[in-house]
Amino acid sequence: VSRRYLLTIEYDGAPFVGWQRQDNGPSVQAVLEEAALSFCQHTVLVYGAGRTDSGVHALGQAAHVDLPRAYPDDTVRDALNAHMRASPVSVLNAQGVDDSVHARFSAVERRYLYRILARRAPPALERGRLWHVPAPLDAAAMHRAARALVGRHDFSTFRDSQCQADSPVRTLDGLSVSRRGDEVVVTSRAQSFLHRQVRSMVGTLVEVGTGRWHEGDVMNALMARDRQACGTVAPAHGLYLERVVYPASAGVSPNANDMA
Amino acid sequence: VSRRYLLTIEYDGAPFVGWQRQDNGPSVQAVLEEAALSFCQHTVLVYGAGRTDSGVHALGQAAHVDLPRAYPDDTVRDALNAHMRASPVSVLNAQGVDDSVHARFSAVERRYLYRILARRAPPALERGRLWHVPAPLDAAAMHRAARALVGRHDFSTFRDSQCQADSPVRTLDGLSVSRRGDEVVVTSRAQSFLHRQVRSMVGTLVEVGTGRWHEGDVMNALMARDRQACGTVAPAHGLYLERVVYPASAGVSPNANDMA
Repeated sequence: VSRRYLLTIEYDGAPFVGWQRQDNGPSVQAVLEEAALSFCQHTVLVYGAGRTDSGVHALGQAAHVDLPRAYPDDTVRDALNAHMRASPVSVLNAQGVDDSVHARFSAVERRYLYRILARRAPPALERGRLWHVPAPLDAAAMHRAARALVGRHDFSTFRDSQCQADSPVRTLDGLSVSRRGDEVVVTSRAQSFLHRQVRSMVGTLVEVGTGRWHEGDVMNALMARDRQACGTVAPAHGLYLERVVYPASAGVSPNANDMA
Repeated sequence: VSRRYLLTIEYDGAPFVGWQRQDNGPSVQAVLEEAALSFCQHTVLVYGAGRTDSGVHALGQAAHVDLPRAYPDDTVRDALNAHMRASPVSVLNAQGVDDSVHARFSAVERRYLYRILARRAPPALERGRLWHVPAPLDAAAMHRAARALVGRHDFSTFRDSQCQADSPVRTLDGLSVSRRGDEVVVTSRAQSFLHRQVRSMVGTLVEVGTGRWHEGDVMNALMARDRQACGTVAPAHGLYLERVVYPASAGVSPNANDMA
């Protein structure tokens, strides 16, 4: 009898076309599915909680997979990792869960982190891990401006033209901006996001941080409900899927998705 | 007339044979000297505060260079960075200083950081940036054991067999171990270190952290004054030269070496 496992996954997005299996290059999903095949000698599908774009990183992506039989949780984690040594993908945790738990549909919250390096000198160690903005950023002004976006809104302005969601309305549960040394970090959380919503919001807040936009311009951009009103879209390589949260009823252990 | 500049430098040690120019591969020193040549059309030597080994990173290496004429500090920083885009080396700060300031001989303290990832799953995002020890580590026991090494001692046990220093006696001003999530971080500071002293001390402390050694064994290893008594030598890729400190009399601005 098969057994469902919920996986918590860390990856470097740089070498991938994104989370989702595609014809035009390597994907995180394919790396995991190939590792599962090597481990179980059985073709399986891995379902992710969110489809991160090419270049986007994860500290705690979640995914589920049905393996052809039950194994101890730690065996699943270690065996998958042993078969993925060549790729920058790591299973932090594997937990056997009920078949009713679905990585995507059961999730009640996604949290993203966006890292900006606000200094003149380019990054050497963190190259490809954050967005280099070679200008002073007013993180406090960015944080105040971000308040306008929290809540239930039509986010048409902050939605990629290719977004396939039926509705542009989403509820943004949190969006905050803080400084950590030379870095400005933006955290956001919601049950779900539109395509490129986080990168669109971050790029727009950076317009406020550099002083090109006034704080109130962010509210005006939201009200416009027009993609043309959006600021710069922040690049993929500063974005991290930090965590996916499941309801207590899913029986996911508190640590399973809290490795970040 | 020439002008001396003190540089604060960040680099990823992975692609280099080390700080020092060598025949067998690319060095950080050579990257900087070639950038200075492109900038000034003049061959110069760059003198580092410490010769980091192959694979060792820097958050705040210091070096001085005499340029053939005076430029604004920010011009030196930006021009060197513009000529190093292909390499993971970044000048965080450049400051014109008196000719009596020598990056190596004027330094009164070097600070190193060593990062250990203590979890079962391998790193995906921080691969090559820390030492993966797939076992629980008792950071508090490591910290207590580290106390035995602080002070003025004969560090023969913690010195590479190729070390060329005249004396094995050094004064270790600080050595502390702390936990940051899944990471265990070891910080150490001294006016100078023996070759591979930090990596030898860290590897030995990890023997305590895993429980293979008792805390008191570190003191015994020190007293042995024998390289054979050392524990594992920690790998280069977890080590960072964090900061080089100069005396107030050198006129180095407080921020110049404090970018880490």
